[in-house]
Amino acid sequence: MNDDAMGRFPVPDREEIPEDIRERIDEETEDAGFTPNVFPAFAYKPSHFRAFFAYHDALVDDSALAREEIEMLIVTVSGVNDCLYCVVAHGALLRIFADAPKLADQLATNHRSADLSDQHREMLEYAEKLTESPGKIGDSDLEVLREAGFSTEEIWDITSVVSVFNLSNRMATVADIRPNDEFYDLGR
Amino acid sequence: MNDDAMGRFPVPDREEIPEDIRERIDEETEDAGFTPNVFPAFAYKPSHFRAFFAYHDALVDDSALAREEIEMLIVTVSGVNDCLYCVVAHGALLRIFADAPKLADQLATNHRSADLSDQHREMLEYAEKLTESPGKIGDSDLEVLREAGFSTEEIWDITSVVSVFNLSNRMATVADIRPNDEFYDLGR
Amino acid sequence: MNDDAMGRFPVPDREEIPEDIRERIDEETEDAGFTPNVFPAFAYKPSHFRAFFAYHDALVDDSALAREEIEMLIVTVSGVNDCLYCVVAHGALLRIFADAPKLADQLATNHRSADLSDQHREMLEYAEKLTESPGKIGDSDLEVLREAGFSTEEIWDITSVVSVFNLSNRMATVADIRPNDEFYDLGR
Amino acid sequence: MNDDAMGRFPVPDREEIPEDIRERIDEETEDAGFTPNVFPAFAYKPSHFRAFFAYHDALVDDSALAREEIEMLIVTVSGVNDCLYCVVAHGALLRIFADAPKLADQLATNHRSADLSDQHREMLEYAEKLTESPGKIGDSDLEVLREAGFSTEEIWDITSVVSVFNLSNRMATVADIRPNDEFYDLGR
Amino acid sequence: MNDDAMGRFPVPDREEIPEDIRERIDEETEDAGFTPNVFPAFAYKPSHFRAFFAYHDALVDDSALAREEIEMLIVTVSGVNDCLYCVVAHGALLRIFADAPKLADQLATNHRSADLSDQHREMLEYAEKLTESPGKIGDSDLEVLREAGFSTEEIWDITSVVSVFNLSNRMATVADIRPNDEFYDLGR
Amino acid sequence: MNDDAMGRFPVPDREEIPEDIRERIDEETEDAGFTPNVFPAFAYKPSHFRAFFAYHDALVDDSALAREEIEMLIVTVSGVNDCLYCVVAHGALLRIFADAPKLADQLATNHRSADLSDQHREMLEYAEKLTESPGKIGDSDLEVLREAGFSTEEIWDITSVVSVFNLSNRMATVADIRPNDEFYDLGR
Repeated sequence: MNDDAMGRFPVPDREEIPEDIRERIDEETEDAGFTPNVFPAFAYKPSHFRAFFAYHDALVDDSALAREEIEMLIVTVSGVNDCLYCVVAHGALLRIFADAPKLADQLATNHRSADLSDQHREMLEYAEKLTESPGKIGDSDLEVLREAGFSTEEIWDITSVVSVFNLSNRMATVADIRPNDEFYDLGR
Repeated sequence: MNDDAMGRFPVPDREEIPEDIRERIDEETEDAGFTPNVFPAFAYKPSHFRAFFAYHDALVDDSALAREEIEMLIVTVSGVNDCLYCVVAHGALLRIFADAPKLADQLATNHRSADLSDQHREMLEYAEKLTESPGKIGDSDLEVLREAGFSTEEIWDITSVVSVFNLSNRMATVADIRPNDEFYDLGR
Repeated sequence: MNDDAMGRFPVPDREEIPEDIRERIDEETEDAGFTPNVFPAFAYKPSHFRAFFAYHDALVDDSALAREEIEMLIVTVSGVNDCLYCVVAHGALLRIFADAPKLADQLATNHRSADLSDQHREMLEYAEKLTESPGKIGDSDLEVLREAGFSTEEIWDITSVVSVFNLSNRMATVADIRPNDEFYDLGR
Repeated sequence: MNDDAMGRFPVPDREEIPEDIRERIDEETEDAGFTPNVFPAFAYKPSHFRAFFAYHDALVDDSALAREEIEMLIVTVSGVNDCLYCVVAHGALLRIFADAPKLADQLATNHRSADLSDQHREMLEYAEKLTESPGKIGDSDLEVLREAGFSTEEIWDITSVVSVFNLSNRMATVADIRPNDEFYDLGR
Repeated sequence: MNDDAMGRFPVPDREEIPEDIRERIDEETEDAGFTPNVFPAFAYKPSHFRAFFAYHDALVDDSALAREEIEMLIVTVSGVNDCLYCVVAHGALLRIFADAPKLADQLATNHRSADLSDQHREMLEYAEKLTESPGKIGDSDLEVLREAGFSTEEIWDITSVVSVFNLSNRMATVADIRPNDEFYDLGR
Repeated sequence: MNDDAMGRFPVPDREEIPEDIRERIDEETEDAGFTPNVFPAFAYKPSHFRAFFAYHDALVDDSALAREEIEMLIVTVSGVNDCLYCVVAHGALLRIFADAPKLADQLATNHRSADLSDQHREMLEYAEKLTESPGKIGDSDLEVLREAGFSTEEIWDITSVVSVFNLSNRMATVADIRPNDEFYDLGR
């Protein structure tokens, strides 16, 4: 395991990690060609590791949204919350899934300056508001999404991605999870 | 199922709900004497139901914090995020677990005016900052928690509760999950 | 007098309090069945006591608004300003005057999640904005109230309640006036 | 009466105004050499006129603070709340009472750039925070005032001036009370 | 040179100042009848002096806006940024160029309470938003200006004045440039 | 000239551009190997082009700061202001001048998560505060910089870079200046 995966909590040694989590980490390592630091970092607390990645898996495996839309939401929310790990790691995923090498830098900085369809612009406007002012969301915000063409299930899924990354951003920032060097360049 | 559990998404009929989720709902109903609306609400999307409650279970079942501390964090964060379901439902749980009938109203309004130990005051100060300004958390914030006597694992667990309820608050507010009438009065 | 009425200024002994103020306190005590702590607290400075309660009396005795509307405004404003005494004490009054046991918890948390008529929703939207950003109020905000059916005098009265509780909330928070135990449960 | 005293509510004709209020207006007119617009404006609602000016009178007639300190607080708070009438009218009073022709423009813009003693700087720092974030005031804020040399009664009085002008600023801005031309130049 | 021109950096002696800058200062002194403190202050760093005043000269000498509109923008932006030097010095210029003795105090406090045409109100609404939230400006904000009658070049010029004074306000506040006494009264 | 250099104002044709500006553009093109879009964009208004780049040249050619420190400040400020052109173009310059391929993404997202010396951390903390809350800067902020080892001239220069990019960010965002494709990848 990489001692530098996380700056503010100890990263467990491989032999301390439960079998099922080690297997997941091995799969991710094989997939990516390196071990994304969020995996050894969350292994600090195995019960949280399992729940966190179960939620993440549900978000991407059972969604009415395209995978690139999910990553657009994640990069936008993580930009609003100033979360380095999530901006850099999901920026790489967005470049790959959207086949759009500039989009991640645009969304992390300001979705208003990004090259987007009108529908995606409304989606990200909503993501920003739900992140910054969750208590101010009202019927009219949902109505805008519906008029932009999003179905009821898509609105649930958009809301879920925004909400889960309001969790992830806080964990990654506090734990100081470091983006792997590979993520900075992938898909450019 | 209660059609009024949630205002902005359809609540599924009992027969549409997968077996494992129905069983969990039945257990919760038996425990509480009524069905807390968050369960039928989240059954709208079964894969999310499983992940959401798995995370919640991990937070309370595998924690270095006392259960009343967990509920103190939840009520404080939900007050900052103006989330009605979470303030009312977890306010009831806090009254019960802390055996403190006034504490939930105090924390939902302003932790600075609550009857608290100095250690818990620092914990809630941190919870408020991590909720309002996640990008501004730095080493000195963690240092304050350590000086207040919290262990490394406790700091991880505090951070996790705050982060997960930054998820829950957004889902509950957008979905307009309605607090059951029972929660308003429990433990007073 | 209750020494615990207020945490940050000395509460005067009964004999130190001028006759007219003692009489007012006695009347309030008889009415409520207990002495609401704001009365002995404000007796710290008799000239302020007289002016503060004169304003309060004018707001409720000479108003184009229903008493329950006044209390709805107070609870909403006090929730925005995080004022414990005002949320708890006027929460009790709202439950009683509106005969609505859940409304106070709803408004103190988030008026957007409360059970409200459209007219009252606009009233509370205005109350929130006038509390948070007084310098940003413009003609269009007043126009919305007029279109929602409020008369000129009602708009003056709404504005006055919001304004006076922007005073009260600051005094009660700084003085650390403690809500009487009775208020937490009244009208539930 | 001056029809232009207030932009958003009707200014009553002199004969419609109750005797006691007319007398107060006459006294103020004699004192100032003109009728400050806040008087005919508040005569719109006589019961509020009486309470509002009773509070104002208590603040200035029964205070542990010097009159110039009261006006320093008012101008600072009114600057934070962007209230034109209060900045201009009390700016004039501050110039006169402090015999300091530049101080009002300095405080209305930014107390950090004003010519002030250290004690008054702390007083105005507190006034700004209590105006902007009333729910965030805590023991340490009061401690700073005490260390700056303010007595318990002075702290109550400072808090009262800030609080009452959080009322006045909102009323004057919503009612659009117009500063008399005279106020712009008095005391320069 | 006036040692009191600036509180936080040393003001250079006249003989230390390069010839071209001394000449500019002399011209300004002749024009105004006194030496506005921003000139000796910026002479601290001659290369910056030349660039800063070159930009300022371009803004006023080559503009599609009337000079009084430029000063209206400057006073409004400087009020939002709480910059004493700019509010007081450009307040004087606005009084003179607009021949409107009350307008500067109105705009420095709250453009919503100022005596303005509808077109100028939209212009200042935009100036406030661009100052407070530059990342939130979008197509609709520009559209409002266009509908208010501003040409493309006027929109560039409005944006430039707002942007340059977001520079000036920060320099003047940090350097603590002191408004000359004369500016407080000019044009009243 | 590239028609796509800027989204919200017309980009002038080469022949419309004054000789001196054309020469500057040619020099920049030769230096970079492509024409950075900010040059044809600002050519929309030649008098502003000259002043803007004169200030920029003064900032980098006559500075007590290292060039990489200047670019660190620019990327941080532009991240706070959500300015796409400045984050992407100066991100490339920072990677090159600091020979640090990850630093720009770190600073654009959150300087608290960046790999920095303590001195540079204080410098960027100040840059963030001066950008977000210019009116709240006081003596203690400057004192922190001095204690971190910055000289008086360095503090002036830091302040100037922050201030000028509070100008640039607003112009680039409103004009919708598009980062050249080359900038996204340079120096990675």
